[in-house]
Amino acid sequence: MEENGKQLDPVGADAELSFSEEDGTHKLMVKTTAAVHKRNFGLEVRGMLDIESLLNGAVILLDPQLTRDHCWQSSPEGLVDALLDSMLTNETVTKPEVKSLLFSDDENTCISQTIQGRVEGDGGGTTADPSWLCIFADVPTLKQRMIGIVRLPVETNLGEDAQEVRFLILALCPTNEKASKSALETAKTFSTIFSDMQLRHSLLESEDELTFKGYIRKAALEFSEFQDKKHAKLVGEKEKSDLRFIQIGRGIKQDLARRIPYYFSDYKDGIIGPKSFQKTISTSFFLYFSILLPAIAFGNLQDGNTDSRINVAKVLIGQVFGGLVFSLFAGQPLVVVMTTAPLVLFTKIILNVANDIEVSFLPFYGMVGLFNSIFLIIYAFCNLSILMKFSSRSTEEIFSNFISIALTVDAIKHLAASFNQHYSNEVCDAERGIYHPVDHSHENISDVTSPLAFNRTKRAADLGEVDCSPEVSLLYLLLMLGTVWFGLTLFNFIKTPYLSHRKRELLSDYALPVAVVVFSVIGSVAFRAVKQTPFSYNTEQFVVKPVQFSELTAGSVCLAAVLGFSLSLLFFMDQNISAAMVNSPENRLVKGNAYHWDLVVVAIINAILSVFGLPFMHAVLPHSPLHVRCLADVETRVEGGYAKDVVTHVRETRLTNIFSNVAIGISLLFLQYVLRYVPKAVLDGLFLYMAVTALYGNQMFERVSLLFTEQAAYPPHHYVKRVPQRKIHMFTTCQLIQLAVLCVFGFIPWAYTKMIFPVVILIFLPVRHLLIPRIIEKKYLDAIDPTSN
Amino acid sequence: MEENGKQLDPVGADAELSFSEEDGTHKLMVKTTAAVHKRNFGLEVRGMLDIESLLNGAVILLDPQLTRDHCWQSSPEGLVDALLDSMLTNETVTKPEVKSLLFSDDENTCISQTIQGRVEGDGGGTTADPSWLCIFADVPTLKQRMIGIVRLPVETNLGEDAQEVRFLILALCPTNEKASKSALETAKTFSTIFSDMQLRHSLLESEDELTFKGYIRKAALEFSEFQDKKHAKLVGEKEKSDLRFIQIGRGIKQDLARRIPYYFSDYKDGIIGPKSFQKTISTSFFLYFSILLPAIAFGNLQDGNTDSRINVAKVLIGQVFGGLVFSLFAGQPLVVVMTTAPLVLFTKIILNVANDIEVSFLPFYGMVGLFNSIFLIIYAFCNLSILMKFSSRSTEEIFSNFISIALTVDAIKHLAASFNQHYSNEVCDAERGIYHPVDHSHENISDVTSPLAFNRTKRAADLGEVDCSPEVSLLYLLLMLGTVWFGLTLFNFIKTPYLSHRKRELLSDYALPVAVVVFSVIGSVAFRAVKQTPFSYNTEQFVVKPVQFSELTAGSVCLAAVLGFSLSLLFFMDQNISAAMVNSPENRLVKGNAYHWDLVVVAIINAILSVFGLPFMHAVLPHSPLHVRCLADVETRVEGGYAKDVVTHVRETRLTNIFSNVAIGISLLFLQYVLRYVPKAVLDGLFLYMAVTALYGNQMFERVSLLFTEQAAYPPHHYVKRVPQRKIHMFTTCQLIQLAVLCVFGFIPWAYTKMIFPVVILIFLPVRHLLIPRIIEKKYLDAIDPTSN
Repeated sequence: MEENGKQLDPVGADAELSFSEEDGTHKLMVKTTAAVHKRNFGLEVRGMLDIESLLNGAVILLDPQLTRDHCWQSSPEGLVDALLDSMLTNETVTKPEVKSLLFSDDENTCISQTIQGRVEGDGGGTTADPSWLCIFADVPTLKQRMIGIVRLPVETNLGEDAQEVRFLILALCPTNEKASKSALETAKTFSTIFSDMQLRHSLLESEDELTFKGYIRKAALEFSEFQDKKHAKLVGEKEKSDLRFIQIGRGIKQDLARRIPYYFSDYKDGIIGPKSFQKTISTSFFLYFSILLPAIAFGNLQDGNTDSRINVAKVLIGQVFGGLVFSLFAGQPLVVVMTTAPLVLFTKIILNVANDIEVSFLPFYGMVGLFNSIFLIIYAFCNLSILMKFSSRSTEEIFSNFISIALTVDAIKHLAASFNQHYSNEVCDAERGIYHPVDHSHENISDVTSPLAFNRTKRAADLGEVDCSPEVSLLYLLLMLGTVWFGLTLFNFIKTPYLSHRKRELLSDYALPVAVVVFSVIGSVAFRAVKQTPFSYNTEQFVVKPVQFSELTAGSVCLAAVLGFSLSLLFFMDQNISAAMVNSPENRLVKGNAYHWDLVVVAIINAILSVFGLPFMHAVLPHSPLHVRCLADVETRVEGGYAKDVVTHVRETRLTNIFSNVAIGISLLFLQYVLRYVPKAVLDGLFLYMAVTALYGNQMFERVSLLFTEQAAYPPHHYVKRVPQRKIHMFTTCQLIQLAVLCVFGFIPWAYTKMIFPVVILIFLPVRHLLIPRIIEKKYLDAIDPTSN
Repeated sequence: MEENGKQLDPVGADAELSFSEEDGTHKLMVKTTAAVHKRNFGLEVRGMLDIESLLNGAVILLDPQLTRDHCWQSSPEGLVDALLDSMLTNETVTKPEVKSLLFSDDENTCISQTIQGRVEGDGGGTTADPSWLCIFADVPTLKQRMIGIVRLPVETNLGEDAQEVRFLILALCPTNEKASKSALETAKTFSTIFSDMQLRHSLLESEDELTFKGYIRKAALEFSEFQDKKHAKLVGEKEKSDLRFIQIGRGIKQDLARRIPYYFSDYKDGIIGPKSFQKTISTSFFLYFSILLPAIAFGNLQDGNTDSRINVAKVLIGQVFGGLVFSLFAGQPLVVVMTTAPLVLFTKIILNVANDIEVSFLPFYGMVGLFNSIFLIIYAFCNLSILMKFSSRSTEEIFSNFISIALTVDAIKHLAASFNQHYSNEVCDAERGIYHPVDHSHENISDVTSPLAFNRTKRAADLGEVDCSPEVSLLYLLLMLGTVWFGLTLFNFIKTPYLSHRKRELLSDYALPVAVVVFSVIGSVAFRAVKQTPFSYNTEQFVVKPVQFSELTAGSVCLAAVLGFSLSLLFFMDQNISAAMVNSPENRLVKGNAYHWDLVVVAIINAILSVFGLPFMHAVLPHSPLHVRCLADVETRVEGGYAKDVVTHVRETRLTNIFSNVAIGISLLFLQYVLRYVPKAVLDGLFLYMAVTALYGNQMFERVSLLFTEQAAYPPHHYVKRVPQRKIHMFTTCQLIQLAVLCVFGFIPWAYTKMIFPVVILIFLPVRHLLIPRIIEKKYLDAIDPTSN
């Protein structure tokens, strides 16, 4: 229907045009001047690629004797004409078309877009370099990029600011090219080269085209090597570290020395200061919902996996205890601790092993937890956290995507279970078998309302046995998809222009709770006639008592040590990665980090949880960095056309974590009345929501999607500029293979293979540092996947 | 998770920065020059609003005696300093911050963004006006827009191109303002004023600030009046028309004279020419699907409304007949004819009236159709189509939104009917009533598989009676929402950067058929165990025979004449609007239009359809303009940052319409085997899809959404620039009221009120031309809702 608008709009552009043509005055000229960095030939692969691909085909006019038609004395138009005559031989686009883009006025005197160098001006500052000029344009119907260069026999006045030009460079690019091949970027490459005074001197003296191009090529190579060295020096400086492994306990001591002086201010900063108390309260609410909902969902999952030996109530009690201890005693209180998807996965592994060696689950689980804590404390005392500098984004992202897959698999498994129980099973088959023979019989309808007809349905649903009530499964599907759809829609609402920015942000922050509440109401109220599996929130198990370690055999303790070691690797990596993202320099935290001490606090918390058979917990993504974001003052800065939020100040406080965990504790009192209205399907929708939102801002996923993206639409990320496309895709493929390996170990049905999956993640570090550099050059790897922390 | 990227990227900007600072050379300057139109004070309300709101608070410095700190002799910086000292008194933003935005280099010598006028140059062309300069910047933390003006005592050199400056204008705007209040737009307003040489002369002579501002205000007023007159003249010229109503048959004669010479070429152009045959084939496919699917859906709707007296088979037979006749004999063969939603609605009205006066439906329906044709032929001979110049976009859009609402209401009614039949009814209540008492009994499961249990379900579903099988309704909901979601996702896929442009376009063009096929398969194959209402495609009614007019009474014939008149208004407007959109000037059709003759062809087609009791048909939106688009060669042009597709050539052929209707005829042979796999829920999804896609590009819907949109995100449409916001919203409200009135007449249960709903639409024309101009000034109305056709 878009035609609609155009047809009925005769007053628009035409009227305006004819008006300004007639009234004798002219148009206005808007001039924009911006500084851009020279191309960094060392870091950005695009530089050399441009030179290699464009220089050979470039049109070079050395000291042209222009004809009368091309009278370059008066305007740049003549030079452009001369260049275009040679450049457009194989193109369908016409000279006037290109010129209408190169010039902004009808008389072709005013050049639309130029790049010039800057030189020292007379009065101190800098002024435009009048000796060369690069003009460029994106041409829609051009087939390929092209470069033309004119060397002028004498200094020539090509307009304001360019009165002594000896070199004119013309860059034309098709509009549909990817951003790094745009006319501006191409012009940047050649302008960087031409800004070198020595090169210009050589070029002035070169006799023929071959020498001319040779000089340019040589200059580009020199640029690239010079800058490479520079870069190496810069990176080298960051390598120094003041901690060694053998300095036992040194890291913990440093952490405590750093943080204890701030302990009182950790409370004060949450209350005093502009908007601080307000931010503390709103962040506490945010944390409350973003911890509580996944905790319930994970609890429900654990309940199913462990035959209720770990259930929702236990998860919440563990959360309140661990959360409060951590927020009171941790070095970095902005980190958020809770139970996570990998821990749920690992708990299931522990259960499988326990069943296999026929020991009681909870004592075995507790023993694994105790070994885990012991290993963690050893790591902390040996300052092992400094190893994290070898961790790179790629490894994190493989792991994060694995978790997304695991959550999705769980949700689909539950859905399939529902369909097996209520839809495609022998009961339904039997019904359908009987169904057909009596196809055309018309019994009295009152017959079928006898009790006999419904006992079946009822009994089966109560006992979790099979029955034939397809509406239950269909509602499961509907609620699950509905929750994830609605949650994501609200989450992405911030990108729309509706309402005010503040309200959009609010909707986006509370997308998950709103979606859960809305679809719980739809499921439990609107469709209350459909009998769904009730939420099992067993209040009887509220009593928490220590597990009986005496039930364990010596052999099982040894196996627990192995599992504990594996688990400790998972803890070590997750805890440190989350903490590193909180302590990221761009968050501008001032009170310092406490990697080593926090590992000790987590170890102690988990030791106590283990003894009471409560679920494990550690620092969690993305809650921890989001928590920092919520407490921050942010300033929007526009850089190169892209708006970017910059953190200016963060309220580093313990209060938010304390408040939210206290609130969760209070919720325990009434949750049993609320939770019965939350259908399990909604919790599966919540898992899918978590799986999908984890992909946002995930660079690995972004690169996978690049495989299906049109080249012209590649985003202007720095790695796209710096790394050849083939290498980017190669690296993505390597990551996909690693992900596949991780999935094999994570989903294999054999518990003993599964239990080493944290080791597999650890192995990815040497793979990244020793194996992959053999396929992809280190300088590209540094751009795609930097490791220095 | 976005933090992820930033944290691990230490090699990026910093390294680049330190590199270029150290190596002795400077940055590059990119300069962009663009011509912009002067602000049209007559049409764009923004001009006067800017002057009124900003001039009073403007800082005016007349011939300042600058101190040593502000040494304006050497650079613009001093002048900017002097202005900012007075301007920023109430602002929190600091001078250095603003200056960093105004200048693009660190030494504050190079101004980032300027506007200048153009004057006749020495050598013919134009050159920058060196006597005044406007500089502007968007400042993120500014509170309000502000203007500062310096009049210099002597001509001053403020850099290249501005060497004799007497006036410097400084415009600062907050970044968060809406587009029409941006710094550029504000600067444009003042630059337009200052480009007037006479004003500058007056300003040079004014003694104090008050006179100075007075001159500016006066100049703005003059601009506005001068341009208003201009505009009135332009519009006036378009009013002349060479046809009068009394010239009976003149329009038809002109049409035929215009089109007959092209008749042979209408076939040739579809085959000969570059890419023509290929385009003809692909367009025929596109038409085939976009006619067939709605035809089936409307047929299904008619079937339900008329107790199968008009059904899918009849709709398709009518379509093939009417489509072929139209494509062979019409004057403008690019118009697509088919049955539409308003016709379905009107058919239902006819049925209600027929039932009410107790005459047989089909003869009465046929008689209404015959009267309709008679009226249409009268309109055609009286050249009534020239009346369409009073039709405006707003009226069309009210009607289009009414149809969207009607389609949605239909879909929801069907869904509700399904829930009433299968979910919430006495049978289910009875079941649930019995359900509870036997809550804890555990009968043997084999008992319940007895035939008795299922007879109920089966019988009810077959007879369309109530039963209790909630899964059917849930699946209905799932398939309906799934179809519309998937269809819209595919339709919008063209906006993503994935795959190639061609493939995205293909997916978008075939979104509806793909969605229908996918969800038909899901419904009929994946959920085949759920018994859904079968598609009623009655092949026995394939025999088409004339209706028995003899059954009608004299009174009923009179009533049929009234209904026929009402229907003819609907035909007249829909046919002409669709044809006008095909003949829109921007489609660059060369063979001319044929409004009057086409009305005759449609009248004849419908007369024949009426006699055989087949459904009516006329030109249809959005198929008709889309059809033109498919046959066009398109060129992408970038104007002011917005890419725009411009049609360069259209293959004006009859072949596409012929091919697609022949294909539909062939489909009749096998559709009965395919259609049984299309669940009715999918067809309702198709209605919703049509309702939603009709909103895209709908200006009324756009303006309604503006009510909820943040001001800063208002689109840069010309009406937003030209009309004060309050007036825009007022006009939107008027439209919403009209829509509500139309809904009352369209949905009222009383058939005799309903039947005048085409008259209501006709009444909207005088409302638009006589009533609304009393609330909203004509010049604003012309911008929001132009009428000249």
